[in-house]
Amino acid sequence: MNAEARIAELNLHLPPPPKPGGIYKPVVVAGGLAYVSGHVSRTPAGELITGRVGKDLTLEQGKAAAREVGLAILTALRAEFGSLDRVKRLVKSLGLVNAAPDFTQQPQVINGYSELMSEVFGPDNGVGARSAIGAGTLPSNVAVEIEAIFEVR
Amino acid sequence: MNAEARIAELNLHLPPPPKPGGIYKPVVVAGGLAYVSGHVSRTPAGELITGRVGKDLTLEQGKAAAREVGLAILTALRAEFGSLDRVKRLVKSLGLVNAAPDFTQQPQVINGYSELMSEVFGPDNGVGARSAIGAGTLPSNVAVEIEAIFEVR
Amino acid sequence: MNAEARIAELNLHLPPPPKPGGIYKPVVVAGGLAYVSGHVSRTPAGELITGRVGKDLTLEQGKAAAREVGLAILTALRAEFGSLDRVKRLVKSLGLVNAAPDFTQQPQVINGYSELMSEVFGPDNGVGARSAIGAGTLPSNVAVEIEAIFEVR
Repeated sequence: MNAEARIAELNLHLPPPPKPGGIYKPVVVAGGLAYVSGHVSRTPAGELITGRVGKDLTLEQGKAAAREVGLAILTALRAEFGSLDRVKRLVKSLGLVNAAPDFTQQPQVINGYSELMSEVFGPDNGVGARSAIGAGTLPSNVAVEIEAIFEVR
Repeated sequence: MNAEARIAELNLHLPPPPKPGGIYKPVVVAGGLAYVSGHVSRTPAGELITGRVGKDLTLEQGKAAAREVGLAILTALRAEFGSLDRVKRLVKSLGLVNAAPDFTQQPQVINGYSELMSEVFGPDNGVGARSAIGAGTLPSNVAVEIEAIFEVR
Repeated sequence: MNAEARIAELNLHLPPPPKPGGIYKPVVVAGGLAYVSGHVSRTPAGELITGRVGKDLTLEQGKAAAREVGLAILTALRAEFGSLDRVKRLVKSLGLVNAAPDFTQQPQVINGYSELMSEVFGPDNGVGARSAIGAGTLPSNVAVEIEAIFEVR
């Protein structure tokens, strides 16, 4: 099943694209790969999800924030290509958690994003290489920021 | 207008390449892309620009430091290819700010680098995908470190 | 000399692959490049090497931990391709050190990984572009995490 059909089946609602927060493009394509800028956690209504996971937010709240980042990345890909069916597979992601100094479950937070990608693109093409780390600080104190590379067809 | 002509027109002076601070190459080319190592903030005289933005340095000082990193990256690309005209476009950057724990304007700092790239390579080819984050710590306590990927012709 | 012969000559023992700590693949290949997930520091027996370098671990201990990460990455590449001789060169690495707030020798730590890659793949193909930074926090409080991109033949 292709990605757009999965989006409909799962009844996922993609958020509108955010206003750019700096001098960059949401997506740049080179050599058959789509490089997606770091996207930050926002509510479906577009408000920033902020705070440090393990202090201001629970693990579950952080994981939910990571899923929202995934939806924002899907929005960016659809805006770039017109359809998510142009995406062949997820290649690689860097997941950054705004974590409390003693927080150590960054992978479990970023799983919120990774589960979404697996649901949409499938258990093979939707699962990529990944790093999940704690940033020192993140823009506007957002809870999660994720950048990614996708292969396009 | 090509990049070398823009460098001349803007009267930009590229710094000499730094001595390697570890076991790496400044630039590696693979698959038509140039992978540029993390470059750190230095003054035009080659001294490290150090300190945490939001504590030891102001936003404007951090932004100026990010621009210096951009000049160092241009030096590395010219050394690799002989001419910046071999660079087709900026694909992707990861901008790391040595930020105070409560600093949240990482994108505004990295804009100092991004503005330079846009000036040199143009508002389309010089604007790439980007992430701007706060590192926990940076080598030698530098203010800014940036790594990037460029497409070459 | 090829990589597998060097492994034998250096009498290197590659560790078994770790159990996945999240929803990701150890290696994804796209466009002739192998994207390797962030791998974390473990002892040869498979136990996590944890703590902050500059506080809980010395520079030398951190450097040794980075070398262990490199061995884990070699394991992942061999599992993916059957033989390390399929690897043409190291393209790019991002080395993340779990550093004390005042630690500034991240490159010297990551050199432990880079020296290994140079030993195995040679002083040209084994030396790539690189960034070495301090993370805010790392999963399970590991000392070092490294992700990398290799060119395959």
